[in-house]
Amino acid sequence: MGDVAQRLADIVGTDNMASGDAVGDDYTGDEALVGERIKPRYVVKPATAEEVAAILRLATEERIPVTARGSGTGLSGAVRPHPDGMVVSFERMNAILDIDTTNHVAVVQPGVTLSELDAKTAEVGLGYTVYPGEMSASVGGNVGTNAGGMRAVKYGVTRNNILGLQAALPTGELIRTGGRTVKTSTGYDLTQLVIGSEGTLALATEIIVKLHPRLPHNTTVLAPFPTLNAVMHAVPRIVSSGLAPHILEYIDALTMAAITHTAELSLGIPDDVREASQAYLVVGLENRDADRLDGDVAVLGDLLTDLGASDAYVLEGTSARKLIEAREKAFWTAKAAGADEIIDVVVPRSALPDFLTEAQAAAARTESGVVGCGHAGDGNVHLAVFQKDEGKRDRLLHEIFAAAMELGGAISGEHGIGHAKKTHFLRLEDPAKIELMSRVKRAFDPAGILNPGVLFGRED
Amino acid sequence: MGDVAQRLADIVGTDNMASGDAVGDDYTGDEALVGERIKPRYVVKPATAEEVAAILRLATEERIPVTARGSGTGLSGAVRPHPDGMVVSFERMNAILDIDTTNHVAVVQPGVTLSELDAKTAEVGLGYTVYPGEMSASVGGNVGTNAGGMRAVKYGVTRNNILGLQAALPTGELIRTGGRTVKTSTGYDLTQLVIGSEGTLALATEIIVKLHPRLPHNTTVLAPFPTLNAVMHAVPRIVSSGLAPHILEYIDALTMAAITHTAELSLGIPDDVREASQAYLVVGLENRDADRLDGDVAVLGDLLTDLGASDAYVLEGTSARKLIEAREKAFWTAKAAGADEIIDVVVPRSALPDFLTEAQAAAARTESGVVGCGHAGDGNVHLAVFQKDEGKRDRLLHEIFAAAMELGGAISGEHGIGHAKKTHFLRLEDPAKIELMSRVKRAFDPAGILNPGVLFGRED
Repeated sequence: MGDVAQRLADIVGTDNMASGDAVGDDYTGDEALVGERIKPRYVVKPATAEEVAAILRLATEERIPVTARGSGTGLSGAVRPHPDGMVVSFERMNAILDIDTTNHVAVVQPGVTLSELDAKTAEVGLGYTVYPGEMSASVGGNVGTNAGGMRAVKYGVTRNNILGLQAALPTGELIRTGGRTVKTSTGYDLTQLVIGSEGTLALATEIIVKLHPRLPHNTTVLAPFPTLNAVMHAVPRIVSSGLAPHILEYIDALTMAAITHTAELSLGIPDDVREASQAYLVVGLENRDADRLDGDVAVLGDLLTDLGASDAYVLEGTSARKLIEAREKAFWTAKAAGADEIIDVVVPRSALPDFLTEAQAAAARTESGVVGCGHAGDGNVHLAVFQKDEGKRDRLLHEIFAAAMELGGAISGEHGIGHAKKTHFLRLEDPAKIELMSRVKRAFDPAGILNPGVLFGRED
Repeated sequence: MGDVAQRLADIVGTDNMASGDAVGDDYTGDEALVGERIKPRYVVKPATAEEVAAILRLATEERIPVTARGSGTGLSGAVRPHPDGMVVSFERMNAILDIDTTNHVAVVQPGVTLSELDAKTAEVGLGYTVYPGEMSASVGGNVGTNAGGMRAVKYGVTRNNILGLQAALPTGELIRTGGRTVKTSTGYDLTQLVIGSEGTLALATEIIVKLHPRLPHNTTVLAPFPTLNAVMHAVPRIVSSGLAPHILEYIDALTMAAITHTAELSLGIPDDVREASQAYLVVGLENRDADRLDGDVAVLGDLLTDLGASDAYVLEGTSARKLIEAREKAFWTAKAAGADEIIDVVVPRSALPDFLTEAQAAAARTESGVVGCGHAGDGNVHLAVFQKDEGKRDRLLHEIFAAAMELGGAISGEHGIGHAKKTHFLRLEDPAKIELMSRVKRAFDPAGILNPGVLFGRED
């Protein structure tokens, strides 16, 4: 240990390495609700891509498990370290290297936070459109989990908004993939392979993100519906309308009550309407032209009432912002309410009604509580699960995940598998795919140092 | 050979297998201008995914090279077979299995052509937005090359429009990747890895494509510019305008003269304007609302003249369609004019002026001709190269590709590397990436049967 610690200090400088008891509690995990926190043997804070590469070369030589860490806001335990391993923290690699208004890209280091990037790109009327609901998250973390969030219904997820990487391979090489272009057909797309790999294939040391023009006019419409089923049937019609909403969220009545209570938010909905509403749809529209936006809002209002909404409220600036923020903080509301797990299943949006029926049936069978909200336009459902008993919770989650997969969906839409959902992933996924992914993993990481135990690796 | 032929016939039926002299000339290559045509030992025409899997299992057992073939419209020789190998032709797997108007996807077999899919999706007001300029191309071929085309400036390339696959692995397993959802963070994205792999990793047997609403109103604006440089400087400004053009093409004066002559197309541009114009920009706009479209066209017209266009002509229905068709057929025009090679370099759009200057300088140094057109919004340049001498042409191409890479671009934006550009790819690409890609290839294809010699494989 002494030798490794010294060699790590030689790479990053003594002030940027800690080992043993000197490792801070911050580095012991993320925001996942399940799984213990683990103190790694080392924490290193590189400042350059070359330092990251040197660290990985050393780790491969010495067979030391490596866990990369951005802001630690993940929800699946993908940054939970190995007790004999090291955390590579990107907190010092947090520069915005370039904002390129001609090619509409920004080049950033992985540790930059979404709020920093948002502020800088706003100055030139552009924006990185991945909003996973936690603006202290890092762009590197987005790459790791293929983060999604609210605006994916219009702008896609992280993988649709990253054009290239510089990455350090576990074997110590630095490579560059992609570039400031949308098109390329020149070998395998290593950028896309690294995105969503949860730190198991390579560590991004520089990221080229796509920027979109920031449309100056936007509004938020809230529509109460008598049933959750009615909401789910409305969603595809709104997507098909051509109105191109950038937000299309559902919130069930229980979750709405909890988040508005927590946020001390009054939405001006009459009591009788609220009492008759089992679910809500939140629709965001934006436009470069104010009059066009007004026209679209009118079309949307008519469409919503046609689809069974009891009304359609155009939220004023402050309450709109507060509702979106409260919705983004739904995880914290659920956590405060004592939720035992948060999941983020995805299904084809047509399958949402069936999926939610199955999830409630599974909850009833296991005497559990399941409430939620989610990115309705994407079929991405966030469920807060209330079940203290680990065995029952495990059975419930298994049934929910199996139902989602049976309906053509997947276990995780945007949080990733990490440690938290690995056993379900390995039980439910096609063994041929697991085996193929393991071979791809070995192609990148022959010594198996990168995040062992995440996705499908060994848990030793 | 006899035994293998019999076993192949057992899988696909005697009528759907040919060997030796009975193999038709159609199966000897694609539309690449360089490289000899090669007759494979076998051609098989499977009807089901299970048949494809069985063929690959046999090929792995017997170490027989396999080349997948859609419509054979590729331009890089990626479907040129191995003389001892077999062609797997997807001509019988050409069904549209589902058009799903709720999730906005279609599920198709790989052999379906773009024109068939376009016609079927038009019936429900939706469309698959990859238009590589050849509507007889197959969707499976799009997957192989990550095809791009004119509308990528708005809708992205193939990889942005494919959500999932069923694929046969070289080892004989059938797997399903992705699904009818945009979001997923559940293991490595095998869909994206197979897209653009030019038939070297796995063979798609079913493809889930994203569909977009077909906007009912569109128009085409043609703007002559005094210099090519002025066109290139105008491009980023038009992309930034928020007008969201779905077509943004440049055509140099020589290419414009050739394609309008070939198409017997009169665009109503006065002689004096034409003589003073070195290049043209073609801008397509679309909208769900006719009045909004008119408003956008007016804004565009002002912008174009601000940017130095000598005028902006709104083309009438027939001439607009004819110009776009003639532009899509530019490859055939170049071929008819005796072009010796067609390339499709991509660079960041900001680098287009520098790149074209470098390309012309390289042409002058090698006494070659280089003219072209391209997807200006994407930085994707199609150059017709006139140079009969193979040594000089090789030097010219090397210099052009190196210049593109130096400017942050890539050798191919949408045609792929195939056999045609492999030597340049191997000479210019980072050896660490080539080695990593080779390891990924082996993870999929341990026996090396899939398209050996394409990208980086052995050429035996």
